[in-house]
Amino acid sequence: MFRPEIKVLDCTIRDGGLMNDWQFDDDFVRAVYRATAAAGVDYMEIGYKSSEAAYSRETNGPWKFCDEDDIKRITEGTETDMKLSAMCDIGRIEREDIGPKSQSVLDMIRVACYIKDVDKAIDLAHHCLDQGYEATINIMAISKAIERDLDEALDDLGKSNVPVVYLVDSYGTLYSEQIQYLTRKYLLALKDKTVGIHAHNNLQLAFANTIEAIICGANRLDATIYGIGRGAGNCPLELLLSFLKNPKFDLRPILDAIQMHLLPMREKIEWGYFIPYMITGTLNEHPRSAMKTMASDQRHEFRDFYEKMVDGTPLE
Amino acid sequence: MFRPEIKVLDCTIRDGGLMNDWQFDDDFVRAVYRATAAAGVDYMEIGYKSSEAAYSRETNGPWKFCDEDDIKRITEGTETDMKLSAMCDIGRIEREDIGPKSQSVLDMIRVACYIKDVDKAIDLAHHCLDQGYEATINIMAISKAIERDLDEALDDLGKSNVPVVYLVDSYGTLYSEQIQYLTRKYLLALKDKTVGIHAHNNLQLAFANTIEAIICGANRLDATIYGIGRGAGNCPLELLLSFLKNPKFDLRPILDAIQMHLLPMREKIEWGYFIPYMITGTLNEHPRSAMKTMASDQRHEFRDFYEKMVDGTPLE
Repeated sequence: MFRPEIKVLDCTIRDGGLMNDWQFDDDFVRAVYRATAAAGVDYMEIGYKSSEAAYSRETNGPWKFCDEDDIKRITEGTETDMKLSAMCDIGRIEREDIGPKSQSVLDMIRVACYIKDVDKAIDLAHHCLDQGYEATINIMAISKAIERDLDEALDDLGKSNVPVVYLVDSYGTLYSEQIQYLTRKYLLALKDKTVGIHAHNNLQLAFANTIEAIICGANRLDATIYGIGRGAGNCPLELLLSFLKNPKFDLRPILDAIQMHLLPMREKIEWGYFIPYMITGTLNEHPRSAMKTMASDQRHEFRDFYEKMVDGTPLE
Repeated sequence: MFRPEIKVLDCTIRDGGLMNDWQFDDDFVRAVYRATAAAGVDYMEIGYKSSEAAYSRETNGPWKFCDEDDIKRITEGTETDMKLSAMCDIGRIEREDIGPKSQSVLDMIRVACYIKDVDKAIDLAHHCLDQGYEATINIMAISKAIERDLDEALDDLGKSNVPVVYLVDSYGTLYSEQIQYLTRKYLLALKDKTVGIHAHNNLQLAFANTIEAIICGANRLDATIYGIGRGAGNCPLELLLSFLKNPKFDLRPILDAIQMHLLPMREKIEWGYFIPYMITGTLNEHPRSAMKTMASDQRHEFRDFYEKMVDGTPLE
């Protein structure tokens, strides 16, 4: 599949940080930056932009805030035309936290929101565009969205100036036919815009669903090295680059990064295919209950967890 | 997806045995038998039927031979209408090794072959049918087949009495569009027959490709508990049962088997998503080079392995 419009975004640090509160050391972040740049990846998302008031620096590492000085410490000394992105969550950031692009090394801000907050997200994304950034809106947890709310949201997005809208399967619950339906729906509603896909791997479908979205016309693709990310993780970048036929991509720097940095990281944080994540995925539930179980001494009590989830027994 | 024609076959012992020469103890095999029976699985494939002359009993466990007494030791005491299957490989078995169904607890023989041996496989499958078994032909390594050879093979199979033909992605290399193309091709050529799918997970696509084949009309589906199988493993049974909507399936016995038997087995044999398997998958190569690398102290030298595979440097 070679379509020049396709752009790949690595969100190793941003999504992986959901597993360790963004407590990555500079060596790891720099290795990811250099590997993705050398591999020909189009964007690297280095973390979240958040208000200092919203999160504590004591528990959260620098990539929850993405200060300019922190980013520059990573990027300096590397020649690349790869662009840099940060994500922000509606409700966790103020307009004034996002200054002019001329004073930032960031190229793009991705605004994440639940479907009820699409209008707030459009407002913030317009602010980002006004400040000179590229901007996207990423509607999370789309598998829980009610059709009528989605229709309204897509209608509002269609009238906005936001050029890119992502379909985000936060719960890793969608099957290919649902990805097909949603991607086509987005494209139909957002005719002059670009549609992106961000998949989670609870059902071992993150890569397959990314391919399905590509076939249907999605041109912005999220992936992470070795699939690192919340819970079951994300679409593995090494698989995606192998699938895409664009000659600019080079798999080898990613293989090196897995060997030297992701395998050691896998000893510290657990992501991937674990049965509790599979269970929340198959039941269309937020992975938080699975993460809680994974951190407990009941992590292998699969039947018990499954029955509690099916019954809706509160787990927290 | 609920289609009453769909039948699920568990090949945990048969394909998993490729990783440990079928040296499973009776407790493990019995646990798999009871769990799949309780889960509503249609067939369990308990191993290979092989000539004693073809393999040594010293290195291969009982499930490489599937003697009646060995099987009965597993099945006795369990009430179920689940059927039992064994696989045989062309060239590793003689007609006389397969006696009459009336003297066997097996219900089905699946004949595996490379495409060049389809006529031998048809001959053996006809013998199995004559002896009173159900029979299938599983054409392995289909990603390496030349189109003209496949057309001829399908033509021969179409004229045969063999009722079920499997598409087998032995190298775990096919993407959804290829699965779609091949499944449709099989169905077109084998109009009154049933088509099956056996996928490997090198590219994290075994489950997705099984779904794709279902959508295209495949009605025989192979899977293994927790995805155990050669190299990267197979389509995980727990994912497949969760996807299929047939009310007779019950996920819970499979969750129990994972907790009590597959997690401990995972400490002894390694299957799953490892980069060497991903590399052979993405290059459409037999996993044997990856298995060799995985067993060596170069198992993490990914770039080196990749470059040798791309260059065609002999690895053995």
